[in-house]
This record gives sequence, structure tokens and C-alpha cells, in this order.
Amino acid sequence: MKNIAILGATGSIGTQTIQVIRSQKEEFKLVAVSANSSSNKIISIIEEFKPLYAVLMEEHAFNEVKEYCNNKKISTEILFGIEGLNIISTLPEVDTVVTSVVGMIGLVPTLKAIKAGKDIALANKETLVAAGKLVMSEAQKHKINILPVDSEHGAIFQCLQGNDKSSVNKILVTASGGPFRGKRKEELLQVTVDNALNHPRWKMGKKISIDSATLMNKGLEVIEAHWLFDIDYDNIQVIVHPESIVHSMVEYVDGSVIAQLASADMKLPIQYALNYPKREKSVIKALDFYSLKSLSFEKPDLDTFKPLKLAYEAGKIGGTMPAILNAANEASVQLFLDKKIKFLDIGNMLEECMGKFGSKENYLLEDIIEIDSRVKEYVNNKVLNKK
Amino acid sequence: MKNIAILGATGSIGTQTIQVIRSQKEEFKLVAVSANSSSNKIISIIEEFKPLYAVLMEEHAFNEVKEYCNNKKISTEILFGIEGLNIISTLPEVDTVVTSVVGMIGLVPTLKAIKAGKDIALANKETLVAAGKLVMSEAQKHKINILPVDSEHGAIFQCLQGNDKSSVNKILVTASGGPFRGKRKEELLQVTVDNALNHPRWKMGKKISIDSATLMNKGLEVIEAHWLFDIDYDNIQVIVHPESIVHSMVEYVDGSVIAQLASADMKLPIQYALNYPKREKSVIKALDFYSLKSLSFEKPDLDTFKPLKLAYEAGKIGGTMPAILNAANEASVQLFLDKKIKFLDIGNMLEECMGKFGSKENYLLEDIIEIDSRVKEYVNNKVLNKK
Repeated sequence: MKNIAILGATGSIGTQTIQVIRSQKEEFKLVAVSANSSSNKIISIIEEFKPLYAVLMEEHAFNEVKEYCNNKKISTEILFGIEGLNIISTLPEVDTVVTSVVGMIGLVPTLKAIKAGKDIALANKETLVAAGKLVMSEAQKHKINILPVDSEHGAIFQCLQGNDKSSVNKILVTASGGPFRGKRKEELLQVTVDNALNHPRWKMGKKISIDSATLMNKGLEVIEAHWLFDIDYDNIQVIVHPESIVHSMVEYVDGSVIAQLASADMKLPIQYALNYPKREKSVIKALDFYSLKSLSFEKPDLDTFKPLKLAYEAGKIGGTMPAILNAANEASVQLFLDKKIKFLDIGNMLEECMGKFGSKENYLLEDIIEIDSRVKEYVNNKVLNKK
Repeated sequence: MKNIAILGATGSIGTQTIQVIRSQKEEFKLVAVSANSSSNKIISIIEEFKPLYAVLMEEHAFNEVKEYCNNKKISTEILFGIEGLNIISTLPEVDTVVTSVVGMIGLVPTLKAIKAGKDIALANKETLVAAGKLVMSEAQKHKINILPVDSEHGAIFQCLQGNDKSSVNKILVTASGGPFRGKRKEELLQVTVDNALNHPRWKMGKKISIDSATLMNKGLEVIEAHWLFDIDYDNIQVIVHPESIVHSMVEYVDGSVIAQLASADMKLPIQYALNYPKREKSVIKALDFYSLKSLSFEKPDLDTFKPLKLAYEAGKIGGTMPAILNAANEASVQLFLDKKIKFLDIGNMLEECMGKFGSKENYLLEDIIEIDSRVKEYVNNKVLNKK
């Protein structure tokens, strides 16, 4: 029996993690969950799984859930805010922490969980992007596994099994290309939030959907891959693959490429991470090669989708530069979702921030937290004061 | 240093094996070689590698090579015929025997090599097809590795690394479809030997080229996969993939498919088998996903390409039936190459022989050898006496 805490249990990944746990009730016990404000979803999780703890980040939702549990005499303890998040990340009862919160907020609880010796099923990209060196060195020190929970890194992780690390030549990260694949810059001048949220292959949260549309998502994944698999940026290649069937590949020194393919369904990488190194009975639709016809591959357009190019640059600069890029992106995406800036402004803002803020090579957690808030403040001030 | 003997050193696989050995002279030593009649090729191998032994199957070639070595005072010992083949398969100096002879003739030396504790780099398909049960049980008994040297089984072998056997759901064997892919039976009535030898992706020997054109080659591979990977015929699926980039795949119980991709070049599976479990620096052209554009997949046409359907049937019947099928095929392909029968007659002859000869469930080596010659005799008599 593996005991699991989910940070961000009501979002897209959290919900699918719960489906996987539901399919293996003999193997997994849900011990703790968190959500921002989705009190109804948390209440139904509490009713079904009777976790020891539930955390709400928003005060109103916290009060609502607490009152509900009191009235119903449910023994789940309801905690509040970032302090609650830190408590459930380090519970002695927990074996694996699933980090599916969105954004920099995931960083501190993830680090605390690592220091408490928990395995991490990592769905929060920003953690490794902003503080990869820090996170990986703590993971090594505390001898825990970081198991990637996204289709690309999950695929790479599978393609590496049974092979020696020294025989890896290159990592090939596939990208669906998002809703604007094939478009030129001029065509993206006037796209709306709804256009950008309309991903052709994956149903995901809003932040990651916009990141997919700008290809920033792939940029974040390149930086993540660098840290997770300890590989140079020059040996990470992004390949646009619109069908989203090949979820990523590894090229070995002998020229052999190992690829992982599956239906586009996040439940598979979640299930693999939770069961690793075992594989469990499928919770997804099997691939049918007779009907899938053809798979295509193309080069990403780094001119139109500048964030991907900037992510490589930030990654190669290293230090706090990826944290600067990530902060600029989080703030810009929110401003785009709020209709304060246009789609192409996101990339321009990333470029501006990378020029404006200098990278600090050797950083502490505090440096990351500080630069994150400074960059976000800069972006917000610049845009909101301009209006 | 690994010492290697090659049975069939001057054919397509043998020649490429020698290229691989040449690229790793520090790791591999060529100790013994055999050829049918290609005395010039064997002489140049002897000059370059100074093997301890060379075997010629044809008397004239044997005398020629022996005289050459005597005159030049080369110390390589020249041996004759099947006896020579058996000697070099069991040499105490040899670690790995590469079996790249074509046809049933490979069976006895392979079995002798296994019994002498040699690892087998298996390129001779007929060995496992005709006597899979016998070969695999000897391999287990003598604790040797059978390392597949063909692109499909090599791919499957790579896709299985790092995974538990119990988590395999299905093996997906890809097929280029051969020169007649997409053709209907009526269109194949009058095809010539040259048409059939003109394979779109692979340059191979004549026998295997015809087997590719009839899809019998894929049928032989299905039977081989059954034995090599201990998997039911119902869990082996053939997928036509004309680009020959995906060399085969494994579907796991969780719905994840692991695939191996590479340029269509036999030197990769040869190199992998000889170096296993290590991977060595590439001897092939790397894949370029930006230029390869698209990969397609389709269902094989079992009506037009009857031999594939018959191979599944023979495999499921088991016992000596695959040996019967294989013998009928060897004889028919030779008759087709000699322009004694037409292309579609090959499939019809296989079907006739499978109906004519009953399968013996528990067989000895002698039974296989006997049924092989009886079936070949039947096919030859029938065709040649009819004329």
C-alpha cells in the first residue's frame, strides 16, 4: 500500500490522479489533498476517500469545507493556506507527493517533501524550471525519486529504462504544436484568449493551454528535461508532432531511437509514475495502428514561437535566468488571460525581462523567491500602469 | 575481447557483420568464417582478419582457397562442408556464433553451438521457425543468450529492456509490405522474378527478398517472435509500415507502446546483438525527424499475401507444421527464382503442403530433418514432373 498526498487535487492533473487512485484502491491510499477554492470538489473527494487532511488555499473555501466536515462529523482535518500545504507535504504517513499545483507556488512544498524523504510525482513544471539545480541536489541528497508526471518526461523516462545513461545521445521532445501550429507571426496578432485555449489534442488547465499555444510549455519542458535527465541543452531537440501519439523519444549513441507512444491521455503517465517500476492494467484507450494511419514530424518555428527559443537561451545562461523567464511568463500569461495584453506580447515580455534582469549563477531558495516576485511585479506594473 | 565465428560470412548479413567487427577491432576478434562458394570474398576476409578457420561448402571453392593459403603460407585452417561448419560452431575459442546462413542448413550447427555454450547472434530465421521448441529448450538448458540479428526482433528486444516480461501485452511486428504492397491478387498473376527482387527499402539476399514480396518473411518472423519472446500468436500483430523506420514495437499492459526507430540499416541490429547489453558508437546514418516527414501504418492484406496467414496457422498448430511450411517455402522460392513456378504459386504450394503433411506434436531433431527433406522432395517432384 502506497500512501499519497496530492497538492492540487481538483485541477486537471489532480482529478486524473484521483481516477488512477480509484482504479487501484488496493494499492493506493489517498492521505491528503489540497485545492485552491474548489470546495465542492474537495468535499466529494473527502466523502469518497476519507483522507486524513485537506488543505484549502482560499479562506472562504476553507471555512465552507471545515463547516461541512464538522456538521457531518467527518474526521478529515481541514488546514489552511501555504502552511497547510507544507504540513501535508511532509506527513510521516505519506510515501509519494503528487505536485500538481500550477506555478511557483509548488516550489517550497516540493522542496519540503524532498527533505522529508518523500518520492515526488512531479507535475508542476515550474519547480524544476525555476530551481532545477536546488531541487535535483536535494533529491540526490535525500535519495528520493522524482517521477515525471507529464506525457513527455514520462515518455523519456520510459525510453531510458534498461539503458545505460552514458549511452544516451539526444533527447527528442515532441510537441503537438498547439492551436496555432503553422501560423505566421502576422496571423497571431489578433488571436483571442478563446482561440489560444482551444488546444487540438489535450484538455488541460488554462495556464498550460496558453503555454502550449506560445510553445513556452515546450520551453519549460526542455529546461525540465535538462534537470531531470542531466543532459545538455544542445542534446535536447524539440520535434513538432501534431498527432500527439509519440510522446517523446531518446536517441542512443548507436543511432537507435526508442520512442513511447500512447493515446493522448494523462492518466497513463500518472499511473506509470505512481506504480513505477511496475506497470498496471490500462486505464486508457489502446492505440490502434490500423486506424491511426500516419504520424508526422516537423521543425518548430522558433521565430513565430519565440518563447521556445528564449527558454533554450535562459536554460543555457542558467543560474536564476530560467526563474526570471518563468516569472515573466506566469505574469504575462495571467495578463493575457485577463485580456490586458495580446498574444504576441507574451514572448516580447519574456525577452524584455531576460534583458532587464541579470542572472545570478549560484542561488539560494530565497534568491529564486525574490527574483520571482520582482519580475512579476515588474511585468504587472509595466502593463497595468501603461493603461 | 569477444571471439566471433560467422556462419555465412559472405552473404548480406555476413558482410555487414564483418563491417561491424571492423569498426570495433579492439572489442571483437573474428576467429572463424564460412561461405558456400565465394572463394574471393573468403580470401579477402582471411587476408584482413587472419581467422583460425575458414569453411567452404563447395568443393571447388574449398580447393581454391586451400591452395591460395598454402601458397601464401597463411596459417588459417581451411575446412570443408557441413563437418567444417560444425567444427567452427563449437570451437573452444569462440564466444558468439553469428548464424547468417540461409535456410534449414543453419539448424544443426546452431544447435551444436548452443550445446557448446556459445551465445548465438541469430540471423537465420529458419532455425527457430523449424525447430523453435527444441532450440529454445537447449538455449535455456545451456544458459546461453539468443540475440536476434534482424531489424524486427532486434527492435522488440530493445523495446523489452528494463521491463518485466509479465507486463507485455502484445508485440507489434512492422512490415515494409515489400515491392507489391497495395497490389491485388489479379495484379500479381504475372509478376517476374526481377519485380519480386526489387525491394523498396532493404537490399537483401534473394531468398529473403522473395519472402518479403510474399509476406512469408513476416510470417517467419511471427513464428520466430513467438519462440524468442515466449508470446502467444494472438498477441503478435503485424503492421504494414512502408517507410521501414519503426522496426517493431511492444505494447504493455498499461497501454504504453515502446517502439524502436532507426534508418533501415542491418548494421544496427548486428552491432546491438554483438555488443549487448552495451551500445556502441553509431555505424549507421542518424534519423532526422525534421526531414522524414511522416510515418504510416496499415493492415496487411492476408488474402493477397496468403503466406502470412498460413504462417499464423502453422504456428498455432505447432509441432512440425512450421517446419513443413518452411520447407515448402524454401523449395517453392527456389522454384520461383528458377522460373519454374509463378509468384502466387508459392502461397498455393504452402497451403497444399500444410494440408498434405500432418504435424507431429512432439518432435526430435531427426523428425525436423526428415520432414524438411520429404516436403522439399514433394514440392520439387510435383513441379518438375508436371512440366
